Amino acid sequence: MRLFVGAGLLAAAWMGPVMADPLPSWQGESKEKIISFVEAVSEVGGADYVTPADRVAVFDNDGTLWAEQPVYFQLIFAVDQVAKLAAQDPSILTSDALKAAAAGDYEALAATGKEGLLEVLAASHTEVSLYQFQQDVSAWLEEARHPKTGMRYDEMTYQPMVELLRYLRDEGFQTYIVSGGGIQFMRVFAEDAYGIPPQQVIGSSITSSYEMIDGVPVIMKGAELFFNDDKAGKPVGIMHHIGKQPILAGGNSDGDFEMLEFTTTGEGARLGVYVHHTDAEREWAYDREGHIGVLNRGLDEADARGWVLIDMKEDWSRIFTGEGAE
Amino acid sequence: MRLFVGAGLLAAAWMGPVMADPLPSWQGESKEKIISFVEAVSEVGGADYVTPADRVAVFDNDGTLWAEQPVYFQLIFAVDQVAKLAAQDPSILTSDALKAAAAGDYEALAATGKEGLLEVLAASHTEVSLYQFQQDVSAWLEEARHPKTGMRYDEMTYQPMVELLRYLRDEGFQTYIVSGGGIQFMRVFAEDAYGIPPQQVIGSSITSSYEMIDGVPVIMKGAELFFNDDKAGKPVGIMHHIGKQPILAGGNSDGDFEMLEFTTTGEGARLGVYVHHTDAEREWAYDREGHIGVLNRGLDEADARGWVLIDMKEDWSRIFTGEGAE
Repeated sequence: MRLFVGAGLLAAAWMGPVMADPLPSWQGESKEKIISFVEAVSEVGGADYVTPADRVAVFDNDGTLWAEQPVYFQLIFAVDQVAKLAAQDPSILTSDALKAAAAGDYEALAATGKEGLLEVLAASHTEVSLYQFQQDVSAWLEEARHPKTGMRYDEMTYQPMVELLRYLRDEGFQTYIVSGGGIQFMRVFAEDAYGIPPQQVIGSSITSSYEMIDGVPVIMKGAELFFNDDKAGKPVGIMHHIGKQPILAGGNSDGDFEMLEFTTTGEGARLGVYVHHTDAEREWAYDREGHIGVLNRGLDEADARGWVLIDMKEDWSRIFTGEGAE
Repeated sequence: MRLFVGAGLLAAAWMGPVMADPLPSWQGESKEKIISFVEAVSEVGGADYVTPADRVAVFDNDGTLWAEQPVYFQLIFAVDQVAKLAAQDPSILTSDALKAAAAGDYEALAATGKEGLLEVLAASHTEVSLYQFQQDVSAWLEEARHPKTGMRYDEMTYQPMVELLRYLRDEGFQTYIVSGGGIQFMRVFAEDAYGIPPQQVIGSSITSSYEMIDGVPVIMKGAELFFNDDKAGKPVGIMHHIGKQPILAGGNSDGDFEMLEFTTTGEGARLGVYVHHTDAEREWAYDREGHIGVLNRGLDEADARGWVLIDMKEDWSRIFTGEGAE
């Protein structure tokens, strides 16, 4: 009799994790669709079974895994970095764009146009060692706070997406970031924030070179664009870094369209997921218009293509990871 | 008493794999040095312990993991591919270089110089879909045989290196290829030949693009060089794809010097390994001179830098994986 009691307890303990909700911050139809896809591709012997080596999932970062308003966080880093560099050496402020950045004046900076933005990015991202650049990003993440939420930027990751990434890995998926953001910028926080190690981060990049400085080998960041990991560049980046077609892709803007299109074309079970920014109160509401994260084609074609449209307001019971932080 | 016999058997069974020689085709000092390095970095609590996430090992391919004589195998593929394409459409033979390739005349091809070689590479590697290119490589590997050994090219991998890769992975390392060869060429065989999946293959590449062809998304290989993964390009490629400094690097030529230099600079236990081609009978003997795999600086500096110089003739009891094939 005792034996059976013991076995019962053992079974209960063993069933525990299996029964737990893998996506506690999700609700509604999009949650059901995602879970049934993941269960279908990981069910050994099932019609839609996919071998773990081919369970590749790719996600955009800005607006998909973390917020991107009022401007891309990497641009805020660039502006803050110009201010920091100017405090040490004001002579670097050789243009209106750099002066606007050093003053934290985003309106004046925007008025300088695309060229002004490129100047600010160049001053903060180029002709610096990769090591120093990543130290700068790391120091910025410690100090900087978001103007609206007051949170650390790396706590403005979406809790439901962090849960999804973990759930996918628990089910044998490899999870990748495929973002228009800087590859070496994202690697500073991707492992802690998302559990995604550096080699699974794909992004835009500038050229770099190998130099001997005082007898020590150093990777120096150059000044030319090397790869633009956006739009049609995303499938190209995927095949360059991963070398195989994913079966799940998540994005939030038309910059992710080709990645979802590429991922969901072909044989076998495939899933495209769009995060739709519908929550003006807890986050931001935007789609068809604006200067960032514009979503038109994706919104028009998601239904016909069978892609899951995540309604942030309805489908997510919690938004930011940092909301639950002590 | 019976209990103790059982425990003894259990212990013996458990010790079995631990006692087995992880590098059966190796002998001598280089074997000892490699094993003591691997044991040192994986001994929990030891002074040289390295966490598994940082146990990154990188290896050149041509001349390090498989043979590279009389010319790079990828060039043989290119020449054979031109002959195959010309058999279907002789009008493609618009130059002396292409005619020499179609005739399999390597001397005449060499006489056309670097430009001729680039023409042959272009005809076989560019303006083709990535899918078709990899199908071509796969078909070639099935059919082609090496002129000296009569083996399949993907059986001319070095058995001792295949053992080393497996041993490293068993000890928690991530194993990468970092080669001057084509990234999408190597991915066709790297998983079967070395147990290295596509996302862990880094190499040279040409540009590619995402195109819709008859409503189907296709990755097309372009015609411009995108990245040259050789010499100082190797550390750059490593930081682009992996994003962290390796602790073990293996090569065979001066094209690998910077990769070994980069890998073995810095804190903690680090190992550089050079495969020295010393076996004219079972393989080829070459180092300081020739058109391929030239090793001068590496040979001069290996001792002072503490790098292991593998003497193929003395240190390897077996050369090719294919020698043991049925």
